[in-house]
Amino acid sequence: MKEKILNTSTELFGKRGFQETSIQDIVSSNQLTKGTFYYYFKNKEDVLVHIHEQFIDSLLAQQNEIMAEGRTAHDQLRSMVRMLIGNIRTNANSAMVFFREMRHLSQAKTDDILPKRHLFQRNIASVIEQGIQLGEFRSDLRADMLSFAVLGIANWSYFWYEPDGEVGEEELTTIFMEMIFKGIEEENHDN
Amino acid sequence: MKEKILNTSTELFGKRGFQETSIQDIVSSNQLTKGTFYYYFKNKEDVLVHIHEQFIDSLLAQQNEIMAEGRTAHDQLRSMVRMLIGNIRTNANSAMVFFREMRHLSQAKTDDILPKRHLFQRNIASVIEQGIQLGEFRSDLRADMLSFAVLGIANWSYFWYEPDGEVGEEELTTIFMEMIFKGIEEENHDN
Repeated sequence: MKEKILNTSTELFGKRGFQETSIQDIVSSNQLTKGTFYYYFKNKEDVLVHIHEQFIDSLLAQQNEIMAEGRTAHDQLRSMVRMLIGNIRTNANSAMVFFREMRHLSQAKTDDILPKRHLFQRNIASVIEQGIQLGEFRSDLRADMLSFAVLGIANWSYFWYEPDGEVGEEELTTIFMEMIFKGIEEENHDN
Repeated sequence: MKEKILNTSTELFGKRGFQETSIQDIVSSNQLTKGTFYYYFKNKEDVLVHIHEQFIDSLLAQQNEIMAEGRTAHDQLRSMVRMLIGNIRTNANSAMVFFREMRHLSQAKTDDILPKRHLFQRNIASVIEQGIQLGEFRSDLRADMLSFAVLGIANWSYFWYEPDGEVGEEELTTIFMEMIFKGIEEENHDN
């Protein structure tokens, strides 16, 4: 039941916005009583906190799995971008809520979640750093700034990418990683 | 006066959110009467429409200037990313409102603004396409998908970049463009 309320709320917050959705809307969509809602959640913010935590915890768990497999930095980075793009199909509304509704969390809750967001970014930076150490990647570009570039490419996809459109997830990942790894310049072209 | 109301509203919408800001808040911040507000704007959405239009019109104007200068695709692309990053310092709140509050526009207004957002992206794709035609860029990657990658890198910066931090706008642009043009792989590294 808790899961069902979370799923409906994610959809409502994602489509209409957090502020625009009432507990009554959530309750009506699930054909519940308010009593049942309050059995599982303290208030509407409590639901938002759960959505944020589930989303970032799931990303971190997937990221940890990728890092634990001990492959090259190159392969780890590709898998992380592939994972983020794959999540669009399955978690588009959670992502919308995550990117857009953070400011509706109280300071205390933001203080819980923000370090996890930062950890996700720092893990990407660590993989790049590791690739630099091992001679896979160039050493003249800051790993932290590159991690934001990679994250920007992947996260921005949530705002425009249609998984059922002309370009599939695998092809999109390949185009992005070709750019990230090798760049778009024609080799030997003089600029 | 209209400009002043727009500036205050941009700040309030950017910091608190559109939904959370009342006309009374806007009026109080400017020490105006509601009468004055309604002389310039029909309602709160009308203010939001103006902010969206100003923001995208200004980006398009700057982009057109860059394209009109007839430089290489390489230089045009760099200038566009530099321009977007430079706008963070001057227009952070407008950007926040632009990225986050679009759903509060009525359908009619969204229909006005969305084509301009698309045009901005398509112009980037055209510059990349032009670079491919002229042999500056590789021809094996889709220009449209690359334009979303470039836009993602630049637009994501609005969510994390501190212009007064350790890395200045010029340096950040250089790191991003090095990655976009040449990639992060160590040359001759075998993956």
